[in-house]
Amino acid sequence: MALYDCLFSLLDVPSSQFLVTDSDFKHPDFRMQLIQTVNSLLALRVIPVFNENDAISSRKAPYEDSSGIFWDNDSLAALLALELKADLLVLLSDVEALYSAPPGEPHSKIIHTYIKDRHQGEITFGDKSRLGRGGMTAKVKSAVYAASAGTPVVIISGFATDSIIKVLQGERIGTLFHQDAHLWALPKEVRAREMAVSSRECSRRLQSISSEDRRKILLDIADALEANEKLIRIENEADVASAHLAGYEKSLISRLTLKPGKISSLAKSIRILADIEDPIGYVLKRTELADGLVLEKTSCPLGVLLIVFESRPDALVQIASLAVRSGNGLLLKGGKEAMRSNAILHKVITGAIPDTVGEKLIGLVTSRDEIPDLLKLDDVIDLVIPRGSNKLVTQIKESTKIPVLGHADGICHVYIDKSADMDMAKRIVLDAKIDYPAACNAMETILIHKDLLKTKGLNDLIVQLRGQGVTLYGGPRASIELDIPQAHSFHHEYNSMACTIEIVDDVHAAIDHIHRHGSAHTDCIVAKDLDVAGIFLRQVDSAAAFHNASTRFCDGARFGLGAEVGISTGRIHARGPVGVEGLLTTRWILRGSGQVVDGDKGVIYTHKNLPL
Amino acid sequence: MALYDCLFSLLDVPSSQFLVTDSDFKHPDFRMQLIQTVNSLLALRVIPVFNENDAISSRKAPYEDSSGIFWDNDSLAALLALELKADLLVLLSDVEALYSAPPGEPHSKIIHTYIKDRHQGEITFGDKSRLGRGGMTAKVKSAVYAASAGTPVVIISGFATDSIIKVLQGERIGTLFHQDAHLWALPKEVRAREMAVSSRECSRRLQSISSEDRRKILLDIADALEANEKLIRIENEADVASAHLAGYEKSLISRLTLKPGKISSLAKSIRILADIEDPIGYVLKRTELADGLVLEKTSCPLGVLLIVFESRPDALVQIASLAVRSGNGLLLKGGKEAMRSNAILHKVITGAIPDTVGEKLIGLVTSRDEIPDLLKLDDVIDLVIPRGSNKLVTQIKESTKIPVLGHADGICHVYIDKSADMDMAKRIVLDAKIDYPAACNAMETILIHKDLLKTKGLNDLIVQLRGQGVTLYGGPRASIELDIPQAHSFHHEYNSMACTIEIVDDVHAAIDHIHRHGSAHTDCIVAKDLDVAGIFLRQVDSAAAFHNASTRFCDGARFGLGAEVGISTGRIHARGPVGVEGLLTTRWILRGSGQVVDGDKGVIYTHKNLPL
Repeated sequence: MALYDCLFSLLDVPSSQFLVTDSDFKHPDFRMQLIQTVNSLLALRVIPVFNENDAISSRKAPYEDSSGIFWDNDSLAALLALELKADLLVLLSDVEALYSAPPGEPHSKIIHTYIKDRHQGEITFGDKSRLGRGGMTAKVKSAVYAASAGTPVVIISGFATDSIIKVLQGERIGTLFHQDAHLWALPKEVRAREMAVSSRECSRRLQSISSEDRRKILLDIADALEANEKLIRIENEADVASAHLAGYEKSLISRLTLKPGKISSLAKSIRILADIEDPIGYVLKRTELADGLVLEKTSCPLGVLLIVFESRPDALVQIASLAVRSGNGLLLKGGKEAMRSNAILHKVITGAIPDTVGEKLIGLVTSRDEIPDLLKLDDVIDLVIPRGSNKLVTQIKESTKIPVLGHADGICHVYIDKSADMDMAKRIVLDAKIDYPAACNAMETILIHKDLLKTKGLNDLIVQLRGQGVTLYGGPRASIELDIPQAHSFHHEYNSMACTIEIVDDVHAAIDHIHRHGSAHTDCIVAKDLDVAGIFLRQVDSAAAFHNASTRFCDGARFGLGAEVGISTGRIHARGPVGVEGLLTTRWILRGSGQVVDGDKGVIYTHKNLPL
Repeated sequence: MALYDCLFSLLDVPSSQFLVTDSDFKHPDFRMQLIQTVNSLLALRVIPVFNENDAISSRKAPYEDSSGIFWDNDSLAALLALELKADLLVLLSDVEALYSAPPGEPHSKIIHTYIKDRHQGEITFGDKSRLGRGGMTAKVKSAVYAASAGTPVVIISGFATDSIIKVLQGERIGTLFHQDAHLWALPKEVRAREMAVSSRECSRRLQSISSEDRRKILLDIADALEANEKLIRIENEADVASAHLAGYEKSLISRLTLKPGKISSLAKSIRILADIEDPIGYVLKRTELADGLVLEKTSCPLGVLLIVFESRPDALVQIASLAVRSGNGLLLKGGKEAMRSNAILHKVITGAIPDTVGEKLIGLVTSRDEIPDLLKLDDVIDLVIPRGSNKLVTQIKESTKIPVLGHADGICHVYIDKSADMDMAKRIVLDAKIDYPAACNAMETILIHKDLLKTKGLNDLIVQLRGQGVTLYGGPRASIELDIPQAHSFHHEYNSMACTIEIVDDVHAAIDHIHRHGSAHTDCIVAKDLDVAGIFLRQVDSAAAFHNASTRFCDGARFGLGAEVGISTGRIHARGPVGVEGLLTTRWILRGSGQVVDGDKGVIYTHKNLPL
């Protein structure tokens, strides 16, 4: 202890000795205070050092109870790791890892990941190891014990000075013991299926508990986030630091950073979500089919969602809480750059999910390689929601048969009719283009009625757009009439301070243009003539058709839907901005008293709508 | 004419001569009466024979008006074909078909399908053909004319006695001229896309006409079906006769046959559909986002549906009228055995669609080969609905990224709780199994609470099932306890008078069994204990969960949904029995007065729900 104390002092880190015996562990009070004491010391940045209190220990046989065995320092370490709910236990040995046979023997190989079923009969230990306390046999036994109870263990050499740091940095050294290791040994696709199936099972349990219990889970998640704010910030800062080092763009780093107050605001929005009306089990329709035979159409969760999102770690929290609120299982894959933030957020959130539901409700996919296997599981995963770049969405749509909710392109049009109030048109066009040019609901093309050519209104509009720094490209007609460079394609999303202009003959030509070149996202007409506006609103076959309002309004929050799952340009299930209802489906519940069909002579159908 | 008369008399068919001149065609009255006269004669089974009235013809140059040219017998035939709206024009020649060069020359090849753009510059005619009236040059010119105006033409040899019959039977002889022939020359996948895109364009027009006009189309379809009943029956009888010859199963032939009164009952149901409330443009939600900015969520058609159905030709009529009612485009592929019935029904229905919408709204896919190309068009086709065998549904699900509405399996369970009224259980189990064993909502598995073993109720149930001719198979427990042969798999749809029985510990075990082995179609609990029933109804994750009622009730008509599109075991978009609403999606309509977002400072959000 004196040596530890001296060495830690060189680093300006105080240490503190704990001497324990087996009899201490028999007292529940001791166990509780042990955790509190260690946590207090860690908060003060004091390193606790444990050893058996040999001087007073009267034990002859291993101490054993439901929480573990205490026999030597390795088993003491395992026991403490479990008591303290440690994230990792590192056992130091005199060899660099566990070998399949004593290290000197031929064919002896390092075992990188210990899989009980495969290795326990296979490994032969040397004589030295079998002798005395603390040999490899004892280490493996303790490691298996701790890992199976939830704390991962790494056995490495204590001689290499930096080996603990290497382990913490995730290097593949030593031998790892983990409760899921047998799953890693499974083929990737089996693991993916296991993850999805577990999520579905948990989601069924989540659906079957009471509305109040689901509310409680959300409140617990909110509390857990606030309680762990410091930890979350440390991990997020580490991600941000790595992103800086890697030279990522400023905008990405900005999205990656959890700004001060973000955790509280996330917790607050989860508490709001907890208190909205439960969307599950809502009766949408009630019909009496026949006397005493009542049918209900009720809302229920979709099942299992796979969400692939980029950079923003706060998206994980929003999506996870939406999933819990709507009773769905969830598989999450975040961006590599937010790896540590996502891991800690996932840990904190799933830690708040009770065992009656199961923490596998929300799975975190850590490697990009696992995505293709998940995308094949159209029998277990019900919906994929990609949140990110066009490229991400397109790639996912191309590679799965699971329904995908989202939009690849947002090529939004504003058509300015000859009847338009040109001041209003200017206001709307400018907002639609420059309020947030990278948004999917930003305008990419202005269609102009031919009668507006050579009018002051149109000239002013062009001058103002250019004045705001918008680069203009023209269609075949506009490029000649307005003398501007020609656009390469009408089906183009600039996502920046640029747009296309084209001249059209009338509203019908505008609609044709939108159908031919648009992406069915959001299209707007500016017109005073209500008949013309009516034609546009009725015929434009897009998720959203607007009259005299900026395309930028197409958004879940602005539409008043609360939390937004995404904006869908698909036509099945949900279209346009999608809120919680996009994560729900329906079930038919029929309650009878023994009715049978009997060739439709069994009952007299009444088909009467009943009040809800 | 004397020869024709004599030869037809040998067949007991009277014939009738028409001698016409070019000047006759100048009178609209003549044209109208010509059609009426010919139709009357055909109704009396008299064959009209046309020729030019040479004796009184004073013509020196071809007669020509907007309807055609009349110069020789070939052009007269083409003109008459168009006047009479003939289904087919057969031109008899002294050679077996049109050749690319005079038949004797080397490299001269038969042209099976004439494509104007490709062949008109390519073919060289011999001298003989160029001389006089009625040579091949004249035939080709007439054929091109008639085909481009809508009547297909075949040029074949008049020497082979059975060649006309062969043409009518669809054999590939002679040369075919058809207005769509240039499309057939396109790669298959281009043709499929053209068909789907045309259907979408027509559906957009259908959506934009008034509700009253859509109603009128349905009424016109109903009228057209009744007016053409005789023709439809002739074609259907031909299909039925072929099916008998081919030795098809009795049940298939029964489904294929349009029974007497079927056409009127179809017409009647279309008229009912015409008069229901228009499902398009229905405002589902209205929200004031801010002062003067009102958002509506409205119902609208999905777009283009691809329906693949088997045997029943009446399904074509039901689906087509549902598509018109819901404003959708439709591509139909029926069974080969109903080819002629489907063709005539398609012709009659599309004939009633006005040009303002376009008859390509409903496309009939005639060859199985075209299906794979259509299934690739996930950007133009919005939903596939397979109606037929499990195999058909599974195959389609496997081979497309377009959403599929339907069910592959219907493995429905009845769980008999220990609290069940066993008389009721018997009634429900018998109905669920034997009312229609081949239906997807028929019961395949009975789950029995363990406490019912060795009770009189259970014994009676088994005796009754066997008495009705139901073969029983057991799960591992039931096969031992009840001494019945073991079932090979719990995930098995018998579709016949057989079912599986298994013993379970309680309702939770029953639910687990259903989740593990079922197909999430329809599952039922028979129980007096309402708490147990509540657990079942809340937790069983199937499209339909029933308490004390036969699984056979799971059906669109019995649920009171009107016309049934199908039953979906998918969880996205629609679940369980699906009516018209399954063919609809939504659009967001926003009406403003110049509002802009301006970083969300542009308006003050009110998000007030407005009355509908």
